[in-house]
Amino acid sequence: MDDYKRRGYGEINIGMKGKVGIVVVDFQLAFTQKKYPLGGAPLVMRALENTSRLMKVARAHQAPTACCFTAYKSERDAPHWKITAVCEQFRVDHPSSVLDPKIFDERYDLKVRKTGPSIFFQTPVVPYFIKEGVETVVITGCNTSGCIRASVIDSFQWGFRTIVPEDCVGDIEEGPHHDNLRDVGRRYADITNSDEVVHFIETGAVAS
Amino acid sequence: MDDYKRRGYGEINIGMKGKVGIVVVDFQLAFTQKKYPLGGAPLVMRALENTSRLMKVARAHQAPTACCFTAYKSERDAPHWKITAVCEQFRVDHPSSVLDPKIFDERYDLKVRKTGPSIFFQTPVVPYFIKEGVETVVITGCNTSGCIRASVIDSFQWGFRTIVPEDCVGDIEEGPHHDNLRDVGRRYADITNSDEVVHFIETGAVAS
Amino acid sequence: MDDYKRRGYGEINIGMKGKVGIVVVDFQLAFTQKKYPLGGAPLVMRALENTSRLMKVARAHQAPTACCFTAYKSERDAPHWKITAVCEQFRVDHPSSVLDPKIFDERYDLKVRKTGPSIFFQTPVVPYFIKEGVETVVITGCNTSGCIRASVIDSFQWGFRTIVPEDCVGDIEEGPHHDNLRDVGRRYADITNSDEVVHFIETGAVAS
Amino acid sequence: MDDYKRRGYGEINIGMKGKVGIVVVDFQLAFTQKKYPLGGAPLVMRALENTSRLMKVARAHQAPTACCFTAYKSERDAPHWKITAVCEQFRVDHPSSVLDPKIFDERYDLKVRKTGPSIFFQTPVVPYFIKEGVETVVITGCNTSGCIRASVIDSFQWGFRTIVPEDCVGDIEEGPHHDNLRDVGRRYADITNSDEVVHFIETGAVAS
Repeated sequence: MDDYKRRGYGEINIGMKGKVGIVVVDFQLAFTQKKYPLGGAPLVMRALENTSRLMKVARAHQAPTACCFTAYKSERDAPHWKITAVCEQFRVDHPSSVLDPKIFDERYDLKVRKTGPSIFFQTPVVPYFIKEGVETVVITGCNTSGCIRASVIDSFQWGFRTIVPEDCVGDIEEGPHHDNLRDVGRRYADITNSDEVVHFIETGAVAS
Repeated sequence: MDDYKRRGYGEINIGMKGKVGIVVVDFQLAFTQKKYPLGGAPLVMRALENTSRLMKVARAHQAPTACCFTAYKSERDAPHWKITAVCEQFRVDHPSSVLDPKIFDERYDLKVRKTGPSIFFQTPVVPYFIKEGVETVVITGCNTSGCIRASVIDSFQWGFRTIVPEDCVGDIEEGPHHDNLRDVGRRYADITNSDEVVHFIETGAVAS
Repeated sequence: MDDYKRRGYGEINIGMKGKVGIVVVDFQLAFTQKKYPLGGAPLVMRALENTSRLMKVARAHQAPTACCFTAYKSERDAPHWKITAVCEQFRVDHPSSVLDPKIFDERYDLKVRKTGPSIFFQTPVVPYFIKEGVETVVITGCNTSGCIRASVIDSFQWGFRTIVPEDCVGDIEEGPHHDNLRDVGRRYADITNSDEVVHFIETGAVAS
Repeated sequence: MDDYKRRGYGEINIGMKGKVGIVVVDFQLAFTQKKYPLGGAPLVMRALENTSRLMKVARAHQAPTACCFTAYKSERDAPHWKITAVCEQFRVDHPSSVLDPKIFDERYDLKVRKTGPSIFFQTPVVPYFIKEGVETVVITGCNTSGCIRASVIDSFQWGFRTIVPEDCVGDIEEGPHHDNLRDVGRRYADITNSDEVVHFIETGAVAS
């Protein structure tokens, strides 16, 4: 038993309840196409498929959904990133800033541009979810050790029940993927899978 | 070489520049005294000592400083924490919510109550730093894999140069401590030490 | 007919619905006691009485409530106020920063310190209301042309149904009081009275 | 002498200092073209001309600038507006959501979509201004009694020196225009004119 567990971390389960909102973080081509420096990692491609399936169910049940991409007008309005490709290519008019059509349906989903790691940071997603009466937020997208981690923290601190289906989030390597699920799973969020979330949306009940 | 490095993560250094603001995260007795369930981890006690020294220098140079603690009136106004001790003991009137006198000087430091993991989340610290013209934010406190991680993300996304002196942040175990410094150090923040920060504050120049 | 009305301002009614949260803005002694420079205006004293009555009903029905005061540690952490008394006396340890016992029950109400005009600005009130599932926010306190105006705007932009019982908000003079109710009543909020709000809380139905 | 003045409102001048950032609020065609329900008010057209001149100076001096428009994907993601035209026409793909070319230069200005009255509410403008080291914010656009009022409050509460050039903000009627300048001018902002702001930007000194 690790020392976090011994001290009572992760003892409480959160659970899904009430209206579900889904956020899809940074499934823009920069991350889903191999030709870009940060793109095409296997865990990310797996998450893209599973999120695509989840989004179809969410739309069929009228759940509020938001898909974001990260992009800037210039280096002036970007924060102090340490990643070369973000500084050079994450531009509003760059082809890699387009949302992957596998997860984005422009007729239904709210599209937001974000400038920080969290999809909730200075975007209209929290006000949208308040107006809709969302109680449970499901986080999907990439990368687990970057923008997913940040989005989970924000969802939690804004007061939502926060759920991470493990097969809907991806990363460049397995290590940081699991390290971050471990950290948030003992503090802020339930780690589950897409089947459980689909079942809850379809039946309003947690799978058992 | 790992796959993050190969893709250009961590290639850019941020650097300290301009006015420095210091934040001290959650050095309340709940984390610094052994008698409490989450308290007294060796890495945390080491960070407490180093932060104490750093704060004395910061105050002598009139740098803006903010120390926060996490506490709630009741379970109603607390987010969905998964940690038993936080749910039961993190109360505004609980003795473990008092800031450790080793790092807090009530004559000088701004004290803020926070309710999420990040010291910047819905607190007056960002407005204070804007008014003061802060450009570089130094993050200290605990735990690296919890509230430090969250505070680093927020400092970065608000547009500050973000610096983490490794010996001023602590955690319950070494693993998550280093995992999180690795994640933020390749994306959002420079990982350095208290000597470098002290030197910069005293001379306005980065140590070389 | 004025030109706003002709262009369609105020054509839509919002209505109360769902769970109600109540905020009480700045009923600290600085505004409710005559001996202080900004204190004791007749409209404010009237609002204090009506809010006191409303809060008793809210507590009896377990509605989430939040009472704020405005205060700073020093001039450094205060924004650029143009009002002398705010700059000199609005301090965390000043006797005029105490909440008026007529509206504040420390056993029940969430007390928050705020630093801007809006009770929602960088405070934990929005996260509290999200966790509670609040749909309708009722705004009380003072002054209508200052912190009430700011709080109404924020409640609206965060996505809540926003209700202002006119007899629960006060100001120094009648002119600015009514000017501001006019501005927000045609855009962001329903202007009603404490009887209507009490009736809705007690019956879950809008009075007719 | 009114009772606000007697109590010390407006006694302190803020002044322009340091780096200037300019925000242009809602000069989208919905407000600048007569054919739309909310468009073409004389005070707004005057403000458009003066802002156009101010923006040319700002760009020539490399000042950070941000122009916003208000628009939604659907009624679901819009807050509870009471104005029919906003509910029906303020859509991301509606021709009236285009920024007026008189004030917007897409090669230079940061364009942001906002969803609340304030240009700072859940948009990347504050992080941009922090990264740029902005100390003084100049507010232009429309309407004085709506989105200008909200933006002034936010600029103030975020800690910036807030300046409103009266001839760069407009409204549908003169009454609410002046009422709101009165309210904010005694609390949060200096009311000045475009010549003073131009002079400060060009010389770094306040005109005397």
